Amino acid sequence: MSQEFDFIARLRAIATDPAARGLSDDAAVLGDLVMTHDMIVEGVHYLPDDRPQDVAWKLVAVNLSDLAAKGAVPVGVLMGYSLGEAAWDMAFAEGLEEALAAYDVPLLGGDTVRMVKGAPRALGLTALGRAPMGGAPLRSTMQAGDDLWVSGTIGDAGLGLALRLGHVELDDALDAHAAYALPVARLALGQALAPHVSAMMDVSDGLLIDAQRMAAASGLAVTLRLDAVPLSATFVRAYGADADAVLTAATAGEDFELLFAAPAEAAAQIFALSGQVGVAVARVGRVQQGEGLQLQWRGDAVELPKKLGWTH
Amino acid sequence: MSQEFDFIARLRAIATDPAARGLSDDAAVLGDLVMTHDMIVEGVHYLPDDRPQDVAWKLVAVNLSDLAAKGAVPVGVLMGYSLGEAAWDMAFAEGLEEALAAYDVPLLGGDTVRMVKGAPRALGLTALGRAPMGGAPLRSTMQAGDDLWVSGTIGDAGLGLALRLGHVELDDALDAHAAYALPVARLALGQALAPHVSAMMDVSDGLLIDAQRMAAASGLAVTLRLDAVPLSATFVRAYGADADAVLTAATAGEDFELLFAAPAEAAAQIFALSGQVGVAVARVGRVQQGEGLQLQWRGDAVELPKKLGWTH
Repeated sequence: MSQEFDFIARLRAIATDPAARGLSDDAAVLGDLVMTHDMIVEGVHYLPDDRPQDVAWKLVAVNLSDLAAKGAVPVGVLMGYSLGEAAWDMAFAEGLEEALAAYDVPLLGGDTVRMVKGAPRALGLTALGRAPMGGAPLRSTMQAGDDLWVSGTIGDAGLGLALRLGHVELDDALDAHAAYALPVARLALGQALAPHVSAMMDVSDGLLIDAQRMAAASGLAVTLRLDAVPLSATFVRAYGADADAVLTAATAGEDFELLFAAPAEAAAQIFALSGQVGVAVARVGRVQQGEGLQLQWRGDAVELPKKLGWTH
Repeated sequence: MSQEFDFIARLRAIATDPAARGLSDDAAVLGDLVMTHDMIVEGVHYLPDDRPQDVAWKLVAVNLSDLAAKGAVPVGVLMGYSLGEAAWDMAFAEGLEEALAAYDVPLLGGDTVRMVKGAPRALGLTALGRAPMGGAPLRSTMQAGDDLWVSGTIGDAGLGLALRLGHVELDDALDAHAAYALPVARLALGQALAPHVSAMMDVSDGLLIDAQRMAAASGLAVTLRLDAVPLSATFVRAYGADADAVLTAATAGEDFELLFAAPAEAAAQIFALSGQVGVAVARVGRVQQGEGLQLQWRGDAVELPKKLGWTH
């Protein structure tokens, strides 16, 4: 981890252009253009025996989720693809076509390369979007006094992975399987919310670690009410709904929900937009002067777990 | 090869947006925006013991070369980086900083991922640029009667690789070493030529294969005069200057020179621009009705070699 940290610190020293935002935001913003590039690696970000169609879907969704956090309208994607077994490649292409059609985003270009035989695949996607009229929200501009919100439910992708690995057994858990295999980028919600939020990002590595990053980027503190974190019925069947269950959800990662801060007076508007888009939102915390992330369970302070999420 | 071909054919069927240009051009063009994404893979596009600084340089140059072929002004890059040995990573970052400074292009964003231990690295770069005022030249719009031109000299990177692998020995060959390790993207030349050419691309896989592709994209035939292909003094010291030597140069790849077609009456202007930019250009062939690539040596037809270049 420290090695990755050092390298990224070095890249930050190179990325001095304001559009790069110190490489600490979900996407670069250059004029009205929003750009992001995320990679997924076999054995690190997906399992070698995941369905290739699902891997393609995930590659698209994780990148579009970064655009969603900027309230951007996708314009197109470029893909960097490392070839492997032919049947896998063709199934991947099928999933790619489905994902791009589902999001109505064109494939504009990219590169296809051979790998050394037996090497794990590394897949990259660049997504381009148009920023909203009023500008793309940053993650670094929360204001003291804001409410902290999250969309959807948290922890379902983590449950899906646990089911996938056989760590948990549960019948009728299709929604958790789908949350892991076919995550949804909250594009419509992000576009609707952008004019009303003071800051926004997507939850990719875990609610706790991403809330902590948002607080750090804004130079403020966040208090998160664990009892307010929205859970799905399927998640509750698997883990219950106590503080430990919520901590499991909030550190699991890959939710690809939107985490955003907004002034208290925007709440009615936010709920109205949530209803229009058809994606639930919940107030899960407050932004305050200070620094760091504090957790509460029904009003009482809760110690931070050692692992707040993923740092891959 | 056929597997890669099938996969790319499948991607082409997905990439129906006009901006994608059927994935058959150097870059996607969307309004005034030019976008390209190229990957380089350890053991395929560079040698595991190449200097990491040089690998970074190459990653930048190969992508900017695609922008050069569009006459575009670079706006920024996003990088997808797979971590490995820490000292290598930091040396790579040093080379990246140098390359971006040399081309005055900002690093805007990207992603850094861990790989499975021991896996070869796969590095991706997306480069964005602004198209020239009159539009970006395509590779598919050569006209019958055009002259075919190439910039610089051909074969030096191939010689550099042969020296690097110990297949050739030659003293005082720094320029060939540099052509392999530190290729130059012809940005200024591409920008100057863009309004005057009918079609343009960069020579990445070999002059012959790329000329053949340009002919196929334009639905025309190209006759290439091997005796007109410009060679460096260093290349001639290593291989001589006969037809076989030129075929070696013209199938070696990684030249990153510009290959372009222009009407005969543009020649004076093209030579003038070449002089202003300080990069030599040479007329190496003609565009005609028909199809395919024909070779000549001092006016006599020469059979096409089996291997026209690289198809990685």
